[in-house]
Amino acid sequence: MKSVLMIGQSNMAGRGFINEVPMICNERIQMLRNGKWQMMTEPINYDRPISGVSLAGSFAAMWCMENKEEQIGLIPCAEGGSSIDDWSIEKILFKNAIIQAKFAMQNSNLIAILWHQGENDSYNGNYKTYYEKLHTIFEALKNELNLDDVPFIIGGLGDYLGKIGFGFNCTEYDLVNKELLRYANDHNHVYLVTAQGLSANPDGIHLNAVSQRKFGVRYYYAYKNKKNVITPLKNEEKLLESCINIPYTQNEMKYLAMMDLTMGKCSYEEFITKMKNL
Amino acid sequence: MKSVLMIGQSNMAGRGFINEVPMICNERIQMLRNGKWQMMTEPINYDRPISGVSLAGSFAAMWCMENKEEQIGLIPCAEGGSSIDDWSIEKILFKNAIIQAKFAMQNSNLIAILWHQGENDSYNGNYKTYYEKLHTIFEALKNELNLDDVPFIIGGLGDYLGKIGFGFNCTEYDLVNKELLRYANDHNHVYLVTAQGLSANPDGIHLNAVSQRKFGVRYYYAYKNKKNVITPLKNEEKLLESCINIPYTQNEMKYLAMMDLTMGKCSYEEFITKMKNL
Repeated sequence: MKSVLMIGQSNMAGRGFINEVPMICNERIQMLRNGKWQMMTEPINYDRPISGVSLAGSFAAMWCMENKEEQIGLIPCAEGGSSIDDWSIEKILFKNAIIQAKFAMQNSNLIAILWHQGENDSYNGNYKTYYEKLHTIFEALKNELNLDDVPFIIGGLGDYLGKIGFGFNCTEYDLVNKELLRYANDHNHVYLVTAQGLSANPDGIHLNAVSQRKFGVRYYYAYKNKKNVITPLKNEEKLLESCINIPYTQNEMKYLAMMDLTMGKCSYEEFITKMKNL
Repeated sequence: MKSVLMIGQSNMAGRGFINEVPMICNERIQMLRNGKWQMMTEPINYDRPISGVSLAGSFAAMWCMENKEEQIGLIPCAEGGSSIDDWSIEKILFKNAIIQAKFAMQNSNLIAILWHQGENDSYNGNYKTYYEKLHTIFEALKNELNLDDVPFIIGGLGDYLGKIGFGFNCTEYDLVNKELLRYANDHNHVYLVTAQGLSANPDGIHLNAVSQRKFGVRYYYAYKNKKNVITPLKNEEKLLESCINIPYTQNEMKYLAMMDLTMGKCSYEEFITKMKNL
């Protein structure tokens, strides 16, 4: 089994509205809860009651499409509202990420680290120290987890920032983006993914669900091709369609039927009938 | 700040349907996520996408009513479907609970451990070894967390078990209940809480939301009075009314307004108007 670490702030955790995009239900995508794997259902990174669709879902769906028969596990450690300083290596978020990754690595091979953070550092000149701080975090992660050449996929901040809502104050997002690109260009195994063309929820700071799905495809391409994705891919919608809109397996149909029963959406008798017909 | 550890299986995690009971919104109730505290919103123990209302919400609301000005933090570590063997002290669930409790205890005083587990041991004669296994777990918890006389509040299994749905096979639930009572009677600081009169969701195994709320009140009474609660309390509904149905503070109204915006239930302009009027 392969695994992927999710770290950063709210747009890594995911705030896309669940009902705005087709569900990803794929038994080969797992997520970590209480140190153990289970089949993935969004929200994956439940850092807040408002958590929703993140880029990790479509990243994993793309991976599954191109890695038949294999499983991928997502390790959710992103924390809404966290600054780069909140991720410094003596603090709780970093320690928690190490612990969760170690749980996961007991029976999986970590193949990528996904990072998206920076809204909370897009003001007050914070970009000036971002590069060095990011470097310290990544080096410590590699060291603590004994990783050699695992890729860090780092996402840019959205062009909708600095304008309205909770994103209003993020006026220096473009300067953070420049630091992210510079960092990726300076380091092997670090790849930047652009947020160009992506859009936000009404709060003006959180990527909407459709954008998160596209972002996940871009993250996957950076991972797969081992290079920056600096412009949107031409066929993002088609790729999403082909990695998500696939017939359910019997296990997936059973999972959905059990979920319906457990959530009171059907009676036990209806559930039994469904299961018999699978 | 005080804190409370939640361990066990799905009825500790909570599967009550959120929309069936009044919301608990109380800024003095916190929950642990990514090793850090945040204001509580149900589901507290997000072990599964189907997680919902648990007994911990009303336990904490009762505690707040009787401990003015103080804060209580909930540490969610319960795992759906886990057997007593899954909690043995060399396994992941136990290790995770220790890690989470240690994060919490960096800035809180652990005042109680809430346990509810046993559906998954209500068949095949598993009750015969339950007492010893539970003892090993509790002793190890006390030892690892350096706890002296912290109370363990342990809940009985529902009388609806052994009849229908996913509860059909739990035919020996009453024998597990006897072991739980015997364990409580044999040990200082361990108190049993009856599930008598509580009822289940359509799946026949999970306590419904109303029952979870009542169960939490009973757990609180066992904690407060330091004795078993072996029959339902007479005034459970009134107690729930008085600990939950209280006017929101300004912080709570802000929290709810921000949640509405972030979930797309209002526009940024409506949000600003709301905030101005608070």
